[in-house]
Amino acid sequence: MSVTFPGGFRAAGMTAGLKRSGRPDLGLLVGDPGTEVSGLFTTNRAAAAPVRLSRERIALGGARAVLVNSGQANAATGERGDVDARTSTAAAADALGLAHDEVLPCSTGVIGEPLRLDRLLPAVPTLVQGLSMEGGPDFARAIMTTDTVDKQATARAGSYRVGGCAKGVGMVAPNLATMLAFVTTDAPVSRADLGRLADEQLRPRFNALTVDQSTSTNDTVLLFASGAAGGDRAALGARGWDELVAAVGEVGESLVRQLIADAEGVTRVLVVEVFGTASDEDARILAGAVAGSPLVKTAAFGADPNPGRIIQAVGSSGVEVDPSRLDVAIGGVTVVIGGVIPPAYFEGGEVADAARTAMKEPEVTIGVAAGDGPGRGRALGCDLSYGYVRINGEYTT
Amino acid sequence: MSVTFPGGFRAAGMTAGLKRSGRPDLGLLVGDPGTEVSGLFTTNRAAAAPVRLSRERIALGGARAVLVNSGQANAATGERGDVDARTSTAAAADALGLAHDEVLPCSTGVIGEPLRLDRLLPAVPTLVQGLSMEGGPDFARAIMTTDTVDKQATARAGSYRVGGCAKGVGMVAPNLATMLAFVTTDAPVSRADLGRLADEQLRPRFNALTVDQSTSTNDTVLLFASGAAGGDRAALGARGWDELVAAVGEVGESLVRQLIADAEGVTRVLVVEVFGTASDEDARILAGAVAGSPLVKTAAFGADPNPGRIIQAVGSSGVEVDPSRLDVAIGGVTVVIGGVIPPAYFEGGEVADAARTAMKEPEVTIGVAAGDGPGRGRALGCDLSYGYVRINGEYTT
Repeated sequence: MSVTFPGGFRAAGMTAGLKRSGRPDLGLLVGDPGTEVSGLFTTNRAAAAPVRLSRERIALGGARAVLVNSGQANAATGERGDVDARTSTAAAADALGLAHDEVLPCSTGVIGEPLRLDRLLPAVPTLVQGLSMEGGPDFARAIMTTDTVDKQATARAGSYRVGGCAKGVGMVAPNLATMLAFVTTDAPVSRADLGRLADEQLRPRFNALTVDQSTSTNDTVLLFASGAAGGDRAALGARGWDELVAAVGEVGESLVRQLIADAEGVTRVLVVEVFGTASDEDARILAGAVAGSPLVKTAAFGADPNPGRIIQAVGSSGVEVDPSRLDVAIGGVTVVIGGVIPPAYFEGGEVADAARTAMKEPEVTIGVAAGDGPGRGRALGCDLSYGYVRINGEYTT
Repeated sequence: MSVTFPGGFRAAGMTAGLKRSGRPDLGLLVGDPGTEVSGLFTTNRAAAAPVRLSRERIALGGARAVLVNSGQANAATGERGDVDARTSTAAAADALGLAHDEVLPCSTGVIGEPLRLDRLLPAVPTLVQGLSMEGGPDFARAIMTTDTVDKQATARAGSYRVGGCAKGVGMVAPNLATMLAFVTTDAPVSRADLGRLADEQLRPRFNALTVDQSTSTNDTVLLFASGAAGGDRAALGARGWDELVAAVGEVGESLVRQLIADAEGVTRVLVVEVFGTASDEDARILAGAVAGSPLVKTAAFGADPNPGRIIQAVGSSGVEVDPSRLDVAIGGVTVVIGGVIPPAYFEGGEVADAARTAMKEPEVTIGVAAGDGPGRGRALGCDLSYGYVRINGEYTT
């Protein structure tokens, strides 16, 4: 049920003809009056027109719907892109009887190709008519590009419900942009608290994802709260708040796990956990450097533990680390102690065998201890396979 | 003739048995008394023992020889690595009748594996006996790891000669570390001027190289000047200086071109030229981000111009750019103007055809104009092919 699992939301998805494949490509999610929304957006300086407009409208306040299309990213489209984002959301707002600023745009697809308004605009009335409280799965399918499966998640927090869906297989898929995620709850949450929830429960999880260290022009995570569950405001200190926090985190965690499991060409998932750095930020950068290293990623594809490549990635991450304080474990097997790979590792034997066995698992945890600082961080990555090269190399625009 | 093309240098290369393959793995280059040397080293914080010792000895002054081994990188080897670097160079120094500090160590090969001193030390006397003024090519072959060809270059500057050789196919090749380069001249150059030559003529060229954005633990570039050509000091303002500068640049340029042409799995070379940024540093970072992007690299493998991926890479490079000022040309064909991909591009036609044709060349130039600032920079990269994944994924330690 994804985004329509919580009360107070209706959704729909349909084929408007924006994609050449004929697959669903237009989705709409609408919260009841009083719905609050918070957003996380790409840091790419070449942010797409819909990202710029959504950012602006969320800052204004009052938005409670999102129109999402796949097929065209509406990025690198200049002023025409801005006009098209306004025109498409205005059409949806008019059909919904909302003010134009109440509808956010999200786009994913080919960068540079203008939005096919000739097909999108005539489809809007049908889309609005199709809105229902069971529309979550249709919505989740309409936002897919080269995803092989849809990504949906739900969780309960006492009397509250949380739902979500997401898409994205490369940070930029084969010339198709973006990771998009939508999370909803029926808890009555203030805008400020919703922003905090998004910041604390969703941002670190989605930021930990790295398929190819390429931040797209369109990345967007939206968190909606309809308040349909009723009762007092859910807020820090109030009853049920901690459960809500955990449920939003659970849905976010489920979505990022589903995203990495469907990453382009993935055969093995890498979970890199770093601790002991000076700050959490340092730990996150370090974890991302290891999970994103093409040499670590190809080693993972070959099921080769290769501790030297992990040391190389740590050393060149830009983070201040004392190499002589570095410990590394692969699947719990220690392969680097105090910056040194034990010589026995190269003579085969138990440690090398155990590390090799751990590396064959579909999910491999690489633990990096970088000193005794308080910093902790995580990255979620995947291997670099022939499949990734095929998907991204054989596809031509 | 590479490093022995200029007078005042003797070199040798041999098989000491450090590599399992039985290929040459030990090299020695010695300059006549009075030779000056300048060095550029990796910025990886986990710098290998030989890098740390070479840095120290160059700072002391007086070094005029380098002992290079392939097979073991002597990185992530802890204190034992430091002792091994001292022991091996001491053996060479003793055989040469030099002070220990006069011989620099360089290593490339498996990270973490201890130097095979049991084989290296007994080979040193033979190596020293083999030194000759024709030994450059043997030396160039002894430093190779997974390089498929040796890389040598020479140039003349009036009465001066410049020679060089290099190795390296990934910043870290399949579990074998490093890019190493050695450049020699017989011009009489002071240490300070030699440092300037290395900084201005070699650093930007070697820093422009990116195979996989992975800075190794062992990267080293050494520039030697024997003074064997005689005559007055070659120095800024003196006769012949400009020709010497150009010749050092020419040898450096030839070596980086040979390195990228032999990069792991390469099928297409990418030259990214950026201008219009606020600073040269910004332009270099931006160029590196484009040349290093896995999405641009896989697109290059597929001979797909894909301007959207170039915009994506520019936007997420971390450099302040105004996307609306961005122009991009592929092989001279403009595919982005003012941040916008002309819509006609997606309808096929002349521009798309011309870009596609340019992208099929073995060397593709991507020009990026990012505003009207004074910054200029370049990166030299290559595509990401099945070959890269095979070499790095199928190799197991």
